[in-house]
Amino acid sequence: MSAPASEAGPPAPRLVARRLGLITQHEAVVLMRTDCHVCRAEGLSAKAQVAISANGREVYATLYQVDDDWLGQEEAGLSESLWARLGVGDGAEITVRHAPSLESMSSVRRRIYGQRLSDGDLHGVVGDIAAGRYTDIHLAAFLTASSALALDHQETVALTRAMIDAGERLSWPGPVVVDKHSVGGLPGNRTTPLVVAIVAACGLTMPKTSSRAITSPAGTADTMETLAPVDLDLPAIRRVVEAEGGCVVWGGAVRLSPADDIFIRVERVLDVDTEGQLVASVLSKKIAAGSTHVVLDIPVGPTAKVRTEDAAERLSGALSRVAAEFGLATRCVLSDGAQPVGRGVGPALEAHDVLAVLQNQADAPPDLRRHACVLAGEALEFGGAAAAGEGLRLAEAVLADGRAWRKFLAICEAQGGLRTPPSASYTRPLTASRGGRIVHINNRKIARLAKLAGAPDVKAAGVRLMARLGDEVASGQPWVMIHADSPGELEYALDYANRNPDLMEVEA
Amino acid sequence: MSAPASEAGPPAPRLVARRLGLITQHEAVVLMRTDCHVCRAEGLSAKAQVAISANGREVYATLYQVDDDWLGQEEAGLSESLWARLGVGDGAEITVRHAPSLESMSSVRRRIYGQRLSDGDLHGVVGDIAAGRYTDIHLAAFLTASSALALDHQETVALTRAMIDAGERLSWPGPVVVDKHSVGGLPGNRTTPLVVAIVAACGLTMPKTSSRAITSPAGTADTMETLAPVDLDLPAIRRVVEAEGGCVVWGGAVRLSPADDIFIRVERVLDVDTEGQLVASVLSKKIAAGSTHVVLDIPVGPTAKVRTEDAAERLSGALSRVAAEFGLATRCVLSDGAQPVGRGVGPALEAHDVLAVLQNQADAPPDLRRHACVLAGEALEFGGAAAAGEGLRLAEAVLADGRAWRKFLAICEAQGGLRTPPSASYTRPLTASRGGRIVHINNRKIARLAKLAGAPDVKAAGVRLMARLGDEVASGQPWVMIHADSPGELEYALDYANRNPDLMEVEA
Repeated sequence: MSAPASEAGPPAPRLVARRLGLITQHEAVVLMRTDCHVCRAEGLSAKAQVAISANGREVYATLYQVDDDWLGQEEAGLSESLWARLGVGDGAEITVRHAPSLESMSSVRRRIYGQRLSDGDLHGVVGDIAAGRYTDIHLAAFLTASSALALDHQETVALTRAMIDAGERLSWPGPVVVDKHSVGGLPGNRTTPLVVAIVAACGLTMPKTSSRAITSPAGTADTMETLAPVDLDLPAIRRVVEAEGGCVVWGGAVRLSPADDIFIRVERVLDVDTEGQLVASVLSKKIAAGSTHVVLDIPVGPTAKVRTEDAAERLSGALSRVAAEFGLATRCVLSDGAQPVGRGVGPALEAHDVLAVLQNQADAPPDLRRHACVLAGEALEFGGAAAAGEGLRLAEAVLADGRAWRKFLAICEAQGGLRTPPSASYTRPLTASRGGRIVHINNRKIARLAKLAGAPDVKAAGVRLMARLGDEVASGQPWVMIHADSPGELEYALDYANRNPDLMEVEA
Repeated sequence: MSAPASEAGPPAPRLVARRLGLITQHEAVVLMRTDCHVCRAEGLSAKAQVAISANGREVYATLYQVDDDWLGQEEAGLSESLWARLGVGDGAEITVRHAPSLESMSSVRRRIYGQRLSDGDLHGVVGDIAAGRYTDIHLAAFLTASSALALDHQETVALTRAMIDAGERLSWPGPVVVDKHSVGGLPGNRTTPLVVAIVAACGLTMPKTSSRAITSPAGTADTMETLAPVDLDLPAIRRVVEAEGGCVVWGGAVRLSPADDIFIRVERVLDVDTEGQLVASVLSKKIAAGSTHVVLDIPVGPTAKVRTEDAAERLSGALSRVAAEFGLATRCVLSDGAQPVGRGVGPALEAHDVLAVLQNQADAPPDLRRHACVLAGEALEFGGAAAAGEGLRLAEAVLADGRAWRKFLAICEAQGGLRTPPSASYTRPLTASRGGRIVHINNRKIARLAKLAGAPDVKAAGVRLMARLGDEVASGQPWVMIHADSPGELEYALDYANRNPDLMEVEA
C-alpha cells in the first residue's frame, strides 16, 4: 500500500499531531501511515524507535504503522503518555526521525554478560529510563540482567542514587522528617492516614507522598482522595505541611524517583522483584522525599509479598545497610500478613475504616487501629516525640482523645476540604458454603475480587470482609460483601468468587 | 470518561472486530474503549494481557485502551498480526477475557534465579512463545536470563528441540538433503541462489527455504522474489523440488521453527545474540526443514557478526556438537567478512549480481562467484556428488558451462516463471573525498545506506559498490552508486552518506 512520494524534492520530516486518546501506560506510542512521507524517507518500519520533536522538546516513542485511511497520511497519532510528554496541542507540527541508539544499553549488555556496573553506568541507564527512552524490551532486559546476577551492595547503593538523581528532591525545614512505608501485598493495609494524623498531632513533621494503585485495588492516594484532594503541587504541599506538620498527597505531581514507577510496572508483569530492586525502589522514593527517619512495615504471610520471617529479616538488613549510606535511619516492623488489615478493600471502603478508627467508632476494625498505633508509636520514638517504650501508648492516647481526628480534619481542610467517601449502588453478600472456623484467607484473591468489582477506578467499589481468621461461621452465613456500581461488575465479581472457593477456607 | 453500564444484567463480554490496518510486527494488539462494557466488567486496564476468542480460536493480545470516539464503544480494533491469527472478518463477534497467567513463566523466573531448565521446561516456554502468548517483556526476560547465565550444551539441545517441535517439520525422499546457511551481517552475500543452482544441477537435493529481511537491506527471499515467485505453499514446494531437485522459496508459509522469528526480532532490539541462542536458531530451522547435511558460512570481519577467527572456531564447534545430537552433519566455512560480497546491496541489485554470475557475464563480481563456488563445492563433496578436494572444481565447471544457469531457469519456471529484476528511477554517485587506497568499508553503514534508499521494501533500491578494499581511487572518483525510486529517499541516503564519511576510508 505504498503511495508515490512527492516529486518536488526531499520532503521535510514533518507531520501533524493528532491526539488519539490512546492509553498505553508509561509507554510512548506514535501511529503513522506506512505510506507517509516520513516513514518512506526515513526508512521507518513498525516498532522502530523514533525521536519526536515539538515545542523544543524531544521524546522517544515506539512507532506502529497504519495501512488504513482512518489515520491521515500527514497525521501522527499520539498516545496520551506521548501527548503529555511533548506538551503539544492538536494540529501542532512535529518532526520525526530515527531515535539515536541508546549508549546506556552497552552497560545493560555488559551486565547481561556478567560484569558489574559502576555509579556512572547506572546513572546512564536510569537517566535514559526516566526520560522514557527504554522500550519494554530494554527495561525487561535491564531488570532481568540485574536479577540473574543479583545486585551487590555497591550496585544497590549506586542504583538508589541514580534513581534519586533522576527526579526531584524535596527538603524540609527541621532536622527530623518522619516517613513510613509498607512493603506491599496486603489488601486494606491503610495505616498511612492514621499514622500521619497521630504523628503530626504529636508535633513531628511527616510530609507523606503516596502512590495510586498499579495492580492493587487501592493505593493510599486513591483512598485518601475519597477524603480530600490529593493532586497537590509542590508549593501547595509545602503550605499544608508548614501549617499542619503533615499531609497525605499523591506523589505523582512531584516526580520523586520517576524511574521507579516504570520499573514497578515491568516487575509486576514478570512477577519478579529481587531484593536489590526492592531496596532501591523503596529508599530512592523516601530519600528523594527528604525523609530522615523511616519506619518500614513488613507484613509477613503465606500470600503476602514477604512470606517468611527469615526473608523479612534479610530484607530488613539490606534496607538498613543501604539506607545508612545516605544517612537515612530506618526501623523495620514485622507484622502479621496472614489476612487483610481492616474490613474494607477498595478506596472508599478503606476510607470508611480509617474514619471509624479516627472517630473511635465502636465497630472500628481493631486490627487496623492496633497496627496503625504500633507503626505510629515506632515513628514517635524514632523521631524523638516519645521515650523508648512509650510510643505505642502515646499513639493510642492521641487517637483516643480525638487529637488525631482533629489533626486529620485540619490536614484534609488544608489539602482542599474534607470529602465524604461514596457508597456503592449495589451490594451482594458471599456466604460460607459450610460451617466451621476460618483457617485461610487468600490476600491475592481478595484483591482480585475487589478489582473485578471495579476498584480502584470506581472509588465506591470493592469488598468488605465480615469475618476474619479464627472466626467461627455457620453454613450460609454471609462473610464477604461485594460493593459495585454496576450490575455487570457485580456479576463479574460474583462469578469469580464462585469459581474460586479457596478465597476463604473453613475447617470443620 | 466512564459511561454507565447496562442496567439489564451482566452483559456478555462480546465486541465487534474492526480491522485497523495496524502494523505491530509479531505483537498482537487489541484496542478497546476504556468505557466499553468488557473493560468495565472484566476490570481490564491498559497493557493487560487478554485472551480473544473467535472462530473457535483463542489468541492472546496486549490491550491498549482508547478514550476517544474514533473507536466505537462496541468495537475491538485489531492489529494485522492479531487479525491474521484470529482469521475473522470485519464485523465478526469476538469475546475478550483476562488472559490466564502463563505457567511457563515460572520456568523463566527459575532461570532468572540461576536454575537450569529441562527439556519439559523449554518445551513449555517455546510452545507459549510460538503461540504468541509472550509479550515483549516476557520475551526479553527469557532471552536475557538465558544469556546472563549462558545456555549449556544440554539446554541448547533442549531449546533446539523445543523450537523444532513448535512448528512444522518437512521430510524429503532420499537420504541426502543439502542445505547452507550464512551467519549474517554481511551485505550482498547472496550466494544461496547460486549454490542451489550448482548443487541441484549436480543431482543433489537442496530444498532451500529462506527468510525476508528483518533489519537488513535484503533477505534471500526478497532478492529471489525479483527473479521468481517465492510465496509457495508446501505442496508447491514439493512439486518444484521433485521436478528440479532444488528451490529458493520464502520459508514463512511453512512455519519452520516459528519461535525463532520472534526471538530474532527481540535480539535485534537488544543487540544481544549469544552462542546458545544462535546455535538453536540456525539448527532448529535446518532440522525442521529436513536437511541432513548443512554447509555453514561464517564470514569473519571487524564489522561482520563474527569478528575474530577464534570466535568463529568456537561457534563452529558449538554448532557441530549440537547438530550431531540430531544426526545433522555440518561443515563450517570461514570466509572473509571485511567487506560486502558482490557489488549490489538491495533485492534487485543483488539479483543482477546473481544473474551476472550465472550467465558468466564478463563483469560478474568475482568475489561472489568465488564464494558461491567454495560453498557449493563443500556441499557437493559433503553430499557425495564430488570426491574430496574436487568440489570447487566441479562447481566452477557447472557454472562455466551453463548448467547452473539452465538449472536456475528451470527452478524459476517451476516456481512460477522467471522475472526481470526492476531498475531504480533515480541514481546518484557518492565520490571519494580524497585520493588513495581503500582500507576500510563499514558493512553496517553500507547496509544502513541501502535501507535509507528504500531497500528492501522498494525492490529496486539500494547501493552498488563501484570500488573494493585495496582499490586505488582518485579524489572525486565515484565509488558508490545510490539507487532509489523517489527523490526523497535518494536525498535521505545522500544526507546519511554526507554525515558518515567513514562509510569507506582511504589511506593516502
